[in-house]
Amino acid sequence: MTTPIQHVETLRWCGGSDGYLELVDQTLLPTEFRYLACRDLQTLCEAIRQLRVRGAPAIGIAAAYGVVLGMQSVFKSPDASGAGMLNADQAFWARLEEATQALASTRPTAVNLFWALERMRRRALALRNQPTAAILEALLREAQTIHEEDRQMCRAIGRHGQELLADGQSVLTHCNAGGLATADYGTALAVIYAAVEAGKHIHVYVDETRPLWQGARLTAWELKQRGIPAAVLCDNAAASLMQQGRVHAVITGADRIAANGDVANKIGTYGLAVLAAAHHIPFYVAAPSSTFDLTIADGSQIPIEHRPSQEVTHPLGRPIAPEGVEVYNPAFDVTPARLVTAIICERGIIQPVCRAEIAARLGGP
Amino acid sequence: MTTPIQHVETLRWCGGSDGYLELVDQTLLPTEFRYLACRDLQTLCEAIRQLRVRGAPAIGIAAAYGVVLGMQSVFKSPDASGAGMLNADQAFWARLEEATQALASTRPTAVNLFWALERMRRRALALRNQPTAAILEALLREAQTIHEEDRQMCRAIGRHGQELLADGQSVLTHCNAGGLATADYGTALAVIYAAVEAGKHIHVYVDETRPLWQGARLTAWELKQRGIPAAVLCDNAAASLMQQGRVHAVITGADRIAANGDVANKIGTYGLAVLAAAHHIPFYVAAPSSTFDLTIADGSQIPIEHRPSQEVTHPLGRPIAPEGVEVYNPAFDVTPARLVTAIICERGIIQPVCRAEIAARLGGP
Repeated sequence: MTTPIQHVETLRWCGGSDGYLELVDQTLLPTEFRYLACRDLQTLCEAIRQLRVRGAPAIGIAAAYGVVLGMQSVFKSPDASGAGMLNADQAFWARLEEATQALASTRPTAVNLFWALERMRRRALALRNQPTAAILEALLREAQTIHEEDRQMCRAIGRHGQELLADGQSVLTHCNAGGLATADYGTALAVIYAAVEAGKHIHVYVDETRPLWQGARLTAWELKQRGIPAAVLCDNAAASLMQQGRVHAVITGADRIAANGDVANKIGTYGLAVLAAAHHIPFYVAAPSSTFDLTIADGSQIPIEHRPSQEVTHPLGRPIAPEGVEVYNPAFDVTPARLVTAIICERGIIQPVCRAEIAARLGGP
Repeated sequence: MTTPIQHVETLRWCGGSDGYLELVDQTLLPTEFRYLACRDLQTLCEAIRQLRVRGAPAIGIAAAYGVVLGMQSVFKSPDASGAGMLNADQAFWARLEEATQALASTRPTAVNLFWALERMRRRALALRNQPTAAILEALLREAQTIHEEDRQMCRAIGRHGQELLADGQSVLTHCNAGGLATADYGTALAVIYAAVEAGKHIHVYVDETRPLWQGARLTAWELKQRGIPAAVLCDNAAASLMQQGRVHAVITGADRIAANGDVANKIGTYGLAVLAAAHHIPFYVAAPSSTFDLTIADGSQIPIEHRPSQEVTHPLGRPIAPEGVEVYNPAFDVTPARLVTAIICERGIIQPVCRAEIAARLGGP
């Protein structure tokens, strides 16, 4: 089934600007490790929506490549964007608008998606006087730069964050903020990987993370690949571990961080932060600067995605609740800055978590 | 599939002292409503172990009837207990010991099990000079009395507890402390049922309760039978509801309550109690006096059952975690008395929750 794979590329671009994107189909893990080839924009959008690729940084990278995929159609068939009345140049810009809109509509919460799309659009606009084929080449290079920068940011997050962990500690994490959520090294898990690489013995408690089990399916799988001792638990058992003094730190990723440090992340994160505070356990958030949204003052402005009831009522496709029952299934919650001990960013450790510190570190408004 | 059944008998004894016990097989709900006939002790013990019948009060009732089932073998075949060397009288008492031991070993945490067994044993001993056939008759009557008392206690818990709820409130509950966990009316859900019967509009948020989904499968089903509006959520989403001010009270059942008011209940209860306190939401525990264990000073002495890893790693029999991963799967946790706003008992509302109040109400040491 799964043989040890130390280094997993979550996404990989194959070929030149007429190439395609391959991504690990994360809905199949841990029983099957398989790449899905995305040869057009629609396949990729559907893959993001279905969480075949997920995790804020990975979604950002996927979206950047998605712009390239979307623009290919202009060269393959000028009418593909329904812009038959336009000349080739107009069709290019119409398609760029269309492609970024399609990608932007896949998932509302993770800001890295919008950040990557904005960066791609700006890159295209900066080259607007060049031939469209050259712009397409430049867009691929920009996506590859975003991809490579993510690798570097994750390594830096690991380097900074591992200082916070001591030999012999147990860390609790929620969802998957690992290699599979990024280019290849993770954010929350990068801190653990770097601590282990620095010679520390770290044990990881992995929240299973209902409804889609990203913890049990993905984080436990990643940790096993790397030989790091881990135990999976139902989300509701985390408090019991904390009560027994068995958790020394909680580390999660983030999908969007407001200017004041409020953090949107996988549903359940807020509860963990409250529990960590009640047990005097440090609660860390690890995220690259692309996860900060300095345009919003606080977490109340972060849109929260609500996902289909079936994720809750039909795990693995089989009913566990009475037919037609009402369901509350937000994909994310917002943890107020006051509950976050520190944010671990590629630029260093932000502590205390407040508007001034964040602005100083990220150069905000 | 399921048609409205207002009144569900969780257990029912069929026939006289040579009869058998039928119980709703709760592992089949909500897709199938079916009684399982337990015609011998072994079938019943297995049903308790497999959670076909569960909930502290229901386990107590089942165990009482289980003693009757166990004793039947003495009359059907005197050698059944392996006591061929003993006379009929000796075989009876040896079998009583054996049957209560077998029942006591099924599940360690819920004290109602031990309470019911002790009561059955005392009843037998009180009649030790009578013919064993007469003792068996008396044991069946004792089990039926325990069963009937549970009905009365649940109604009383509802009557007392409903005073704590106001019209229009939303209550969050965890696991199933409803009719299915008792003779027929519940403990935590009795409070809700009684409030609704008193004309109040109550909305219920139902924690799905991993790993075995007693909330989604059983509580949501019960509430639907009674037409009470309810929404199911993943356990990790409860904090998000509280943060939004959408939960006005949390009510759970209990598996064992120590003399000082510490409460053992389904894993996840402790976390909810911490979260409720952090959000200034009252946290109520509803339980009959048979759930109190006044022989233990505090919750640290309550044995916590750890259940098989497969419950976590193989929901519905399919793998969601890497093979061989370590698992933390306690079935219960302990909520300290200081986090419990009040205990709703058939004898009234115990508040504040402390040793003196409990002793005064229950006549403890």
